[in-house]
Amino acid sequence: MAHSFKVFLFFSFFTLSIIPFSHQLQHPLDSLTPNEFIQVQSIVNRSYPGSSHNLTFQYVGLEEPNKQVVVSWLENSSTTPPPRQALVIARINHRTHEISVDLSSVGIISDRIYDGYGYPLLTFEEQTAANQLPFKYAPFLASISKRGLKIEEVVCGSFTVGWHGEEKKNRRIVKVMCYYLDGTVNLYMRPIEAITVTVDLEEMKIIHFQDRFMIPVPKAAGTDYRESEQRAPFGPQLKGITVMQPDGPSFTIDGNRVRWANWDFHLSFDARVGPIISLASIYDIERQKFRRVMYRGYLSELFVPYMDLTEEWYYRTFFDAGEYGYGLCAVPLEPLRDCPANAVFMGAFVAGQDGMPIEMPNVFCIFERNAGDVMWRHTETMIPETLVTEVRPEVSLVVRMVSTVGNYDYINDWEFKRIGSIKVTVGLTGLLEVRGSKYTHKDQINEEAYGTLLAENTLGARHDHFLTYYLDLDVDGDSNSFVKSKLKTTRVTDQSSPRKSYWKVVSETAKTESDAKIKLGLESADLLFVNPNKKTKMGNLVGYRLIPGSVTGPLLTDDDYSQVRAAFTKYNVWVTPYNRSEKWAGGLYTDQSRGDDTLATWSSRNRKIENKDIVLWYTLGFHHVPYQEDFPLMPTLSSGFELRPANFFEYNPVLKVKAPNNVKWLNCST
Amino acid sequence: MAHSFKVFLFFSFFTLSIIPFSHQLQHPLDSLTPNEFIQVQSIVNRSYPGSSHNLTFQYVGLEEPNKQVVVSWLENSSTTPPPRQALVIARINHRTHEISVDLSSVGIISDRIYDGYGYPLLTFEEQTAANQLPFKYAPFLASISKRGLKIEEVVCGSFTVGWHGEEKKNRRIVKVMCYYLDGTVNLYMRPIEAITVTVDLEEMKIIHFQDRFMIPVPKAAGTDYRESEQRAPFGPQLKGITVMQPDGPSFTIDGNRVRWANWDFHLSFDARVGPIISLASIYDIERQKFRRVMYRGYLSELFVPYMDLTEEWYYRTFFDAGEYGYGLCAVPLEPLRDCPANAVFMGAFVAGQDGMPIEMPNVFCIFERNAGDVMWRHTETMIPETLVTEVRPEVSLVVRMVSTVGNYDYINDWEFKRIGSIKVTVGLTGLLEVRGSKYTHKDQINEEAYGTLLAENTLGARHDHFLTYYLDLDVDGDSNSFVKSKLKTTRVTDQSSPRKSYWKVVSETAKTESDAKIKLGLESADLLFVNPNKKTKMGNLVGYRLIPGSVTGPLLTDDDYSQVRAAFTKYNVWVTPYNRSEKWAGGLYTDQSRGDDTLATWSSRNRKIENKDIVLWYTLGFHHVPYQEDFPLMPTLSSGFELRPANFFEYNPVLKVKAPNNVKWLNCST
Repeated sequence: MAHSFKVFLFFSFFTLSIIPFSHQLQHPLDSLTPNEFIQVQSIVNRSYPGSSHNLTFQYVGLEEPNKQVVVSWLENSSTTPPPRQALVIARINHRTHEISVDLSSVGIISDRIYDGYGYPLLTFEEQTAANQLPFKYAPFLASISKRGLKIEEVVCGSFTVGWHGEEKKNRRIVKVMCYYLDGTVNLYMRPIEAITVTVDLEEMKIIHFQDRFMIPVPKAAGTDYRESEQRAPFGPQLKGITVMQPDGPSFTIDGNRVRWANWDFHLSFDARVGPIISLASIYDIERQKFRRVMYRGYLSELFVPYMDLTEEWYYRTFFDAGEYGYGLCAVPLEPLRDCPANAVFMGAFVAGQDGMPIEMPNVFCIFERNAGDVMWRHTETMIPETLVTEVRPEVSLVVRMVSTVGNYDYINDWEFKRIGSIKVTVGLTGLLEVRGSKYTHKDQINEEAYGTLLAENTLGARHDHFLTYYLDLDVDGDSNSFVKSKLKTTRVTDQSSPRKSYWKVVSETAKTESDAKIKLGLESADLLFVNPNKKTKMGNLVGYRLIPGSVTGPLLTDDDYSQVRAAFTKYNVWVTPYNRSEKWAGGLYTDQSRGDDTLATWSSRNRKIENKDIVLWYTLGFHHVPYQEDFPLMPTLSSGFELRPANFFEYNPVLKVKAPNNVKWLNCST
Repeated sequence: MAHSFKVFLFFSFFTLSIIPFSHQLQHPLDSLTPNEFIQVQSIVNRSYPGSSHNLTFQYVGLEEPNKQVVVSWLENSSTTPPPRQALVIARINHRTHEISVDLSSVGIISDRIYDGYGYPLLTFEEQTAANQLPFKYAPFLASISKRGLKIEEVVCGSFTVGWHGEEKKNRRIVKVMCYYLDGTVNLYMRPIEAITVTVDLEEMKIIHFQDRFMIPVPKAAGTDYRESEQRAPFGPQLKGITVMQPDGPSFTIDGNRVRWANWDFHLSFDARVGPIISLASIYDIERQKFRRVMYRGYLSELFVPYMDLTEEWYYRTFFDAGEYGYGLCAVPLEPLRDCPANAVFMGAFVAGQDGMPIEMPNVFCIFERNAGDVMWRHTETMIPETLVTEVRPEVSLVVRMVSTVGNYDYINDWEFKRIGSIKVTVGLTGLLEVRGSKYTHKDQINEEAYGTLLAENTLGARHDHFLTYYLDLDVDGDSNSFVKSKLKTTRVTDQSSPRKSYWKVVSETAKTESDAKIKLGLESADLLFVNPNKKTKMGNLVGYRLIPGSVTGPLLTDDDYSQVRAAFTKYNVWVTPYNRSEKWAGGLYTDQSRGDDTLATWSSRNRKIENKDIVLWYTLGFHHVPYQEDFPLMPTLSSGFELRPANFFEYNPVLKVKAPNNVKWLNCST
């Protein structure tokens, strides 16, 4: 939906000289710079001049360089770095073009027309344009007037339509749904129901209009969430609390490379997926070198199906990354609110519909987390006349980005720990999507209402969230295997022990992709990425372990159309051989996709995955039955997962961590 | 195992005058005071004078007062408070006595001899005595000598023996296992294997000795975890970081009553279970009153079975609360390490074996947690020319206690949130229990070794942890029902929608206990405690929801003896009618219990639980397959659960929470 806050930078179209944007050498995985965006735009525009072409840039991003070339360059930086290339998905004269642009040779490498199912990411500009159309459309104005509503208090948003079995390929359309402000900014609590405006994005005109019935817009009294709008009594006000680092942070940022404690990684930004963590390596004190853990990790797709069959709701089965752009929807983080006082902020750039760079300030914050947790402790009381107490407080490093896709705000944390863990947490907050309804009390409801009555005329709609992460782990090198260490109940039948049972570990190495598909919750197992070519001194395969944080799976039937599109959510875990083209679990063209280009289809080839460069895909989910506490705002509900070393080190790195110096403050006054 | 740091207070045996210990009025749920312990001791001693009786106090604690009387007193404090009573479990002349002592009438109310299966909590003093016996036992000294070990470097610990099908009732015994220090304090990495010393605790003598074979004590080089013992290279040292509250904390502690933000609760301490949270109530701004959420909550039992069938290990199936005392094993928290700089510390008292009070300093810390999380946020970009960003940072209140049961340190957090949630987290850390072994490389292992080879001669033993919480929720009153809101896939067969499926909510109210037993992970459901007599304005039953954090269940067979004793772990969720005597999931006499007095046996009566005062029992678990990163110390691994309001409020209390004032520091120098 339309973001109006974007600051457009007025880079000249013709200036291709390098702006002194960054003093350090460029890293092959750096996001495109403003100059590069301009360069790309200029190159594409040269081939398709605006005077004779209808050209929109739907996506512009770094074309991920060849992994082997990157790895070689890292090992020996005197070799030639991989060429800088950009991937452009454009609509040119109403057709989708996939254009590869080389930024060193300054030209188009390839230009392919895509004619299959599905469309590229929507741009903000076309959503904004679509949202304006109803205001000049007489039937819509009549509908608003008929309801006694003031048109100047109406705002509209564009909703992707999904696919629901239509045989004929649909045009590139959205449905525009509208809300009533009239004194509130919490528009999501005031849907104007029953009106559906269908917009053709290519023609940028309304092609269908429907107004089915009239029900009251919820009064939504008292639902404005702005602090400035609240009246007493207030909730308890807490005294000030903050984090202090008198000697500054313990991390360094060199371009896009972040170094903290024993970690070293690269952070970049992409319009489609948001933050990308690359080349995460951890320093091994014993071997005195950095060892690779993850080549690249990011949120690949986010599927949000609603469970409401009514005409205005059935199609709401969103793919937030592939349709709206999870990075495009990033919002500026508020210092001291979104991130603690010790946070450092970073911005990013995306391309506008015209291909020109748009600055997105403060999309990242990076901070050391000091939550009061304990990394390790022990009190030893068994040694006579000796009391040993050793405690190492936990401090970790967090990279945060918030993506606000319409009503939902997703707080994305990548957290690095000194024990070697990478922990990913997503917090769901923002506002609930509610349906206007005739009901004013639960007792009136005698049908399937698809939600919880939260307030008068306000039904909180049931829905799911499935977040699928792409995790190209390279555990101490890129040849890895996926091992399920199953915990098997074993009966003791030979009188060898007074025990009747125990559990043992039966490790199975997945040979092919089908061996690696897992629905969590069905059996007890440790899930490991190991390097079958490297062992600890004791002979254990070096590995990392996935510790899932959720066992949620889809409840739609396999043959339901949106589930076909989101077939990658059927299993919580998939493992695929690395393939540069397999990045987005829902396929490159997700809007109106039909499921012919998803993780599930790729994986159906059942390729070999043993001792190969392989990728872990992990899906965590939420089933959301709304409660009144989700009204009129939703407090954060979190889930996540952890990648934890498992026989990666000879011993735990915490052994060599000193307790921090106490912070002493003198002469402070407030 | 023996704690040697306990500070014995030299209260006079005969002084019954009240020491000015606390200025505020006593709360009926307050733990016994030092004076009360002395009073109890004196009363019991009077009946069983030491000269003619062999008397040990195995447990002394507050006899939980009648709930209805407490509630009446709370509603009208001019009524008579419930009488102060103590429960004493004593061994008197080798028999178990359950003695109820009234502290106002200063006398014994009842004195019952228990002759069933199982024994009471072990005392530290008897464990210490048992651990000393081998040092004067010639066969043991010979075994140590034979191994070439120095006896002065040996330390021993007492291990409960469980029950493994013996028909004849066993004496009250422990097995004493020994470790070799010789320059390290990390004794758990240096087990002296193959020697088993069986001690009769009543006779306090060795009744059986066995030395089966000789294998090397692991060298355990470099496993001493003390910071002072580490040599370079060190791990990365971070710069100082701390939390600051220039205006002090936002909570108050009045006796044992804690008030913070919208929460009010009572905190007490028990030798068996550790922290007890009582009378947790939350202030409802709209109704302008406190509303009860939980009458009483604590960790009821902790079952830790090892998965090693060898002679020296098969019996290790510990019940840490019922055998060792989870509160008794609490350790003093280190300021600035175990708890952040803004923490407030509290002590507690337990009874020694002689019945006299022992002070346990700093067993609790209470602090406001400022982790850098976001309680709620939203950025609204859809309103033309308006950008709304509202963020409410998360600050919560944490009550922490650490219980160190031998090698394992359990970090217990009860966390209160302004959104109305109570979040319980347990962090497992400390040291692994390892088995000495002949192996020096994994390739040598051709049998079931029951563990992971972590270092030379060092096998990390596989095991589980099951933590069972007692949660007497009183959601807005004590008549509650347990509702499973099942999420059911529903096919659309009538062409009413282009969709083929959705999920609906089918709520089932548990009528009897058998309806409420749940193994998590098998189906999708929201689990609710509702008050069927109270509704929101919209007509939704007020409730709280259990959000589990783990779906782990036992893998032992149902008929295995230790699983019979721990049958309460078979389901993650049980609901029982409130019954004052049903407190400890493993039964009152857990040591050598046979499973005839557990949550599972109580619940087999299948009592009615609808619209009654009911109790939720929740079990979370860990299966622990050791990895080299658990060596030579175990970094914290956490799990937990959340009790979250679900239609309890009319709207989310965050709406009325103001963002905090920024903390400003002037003129600071370090």
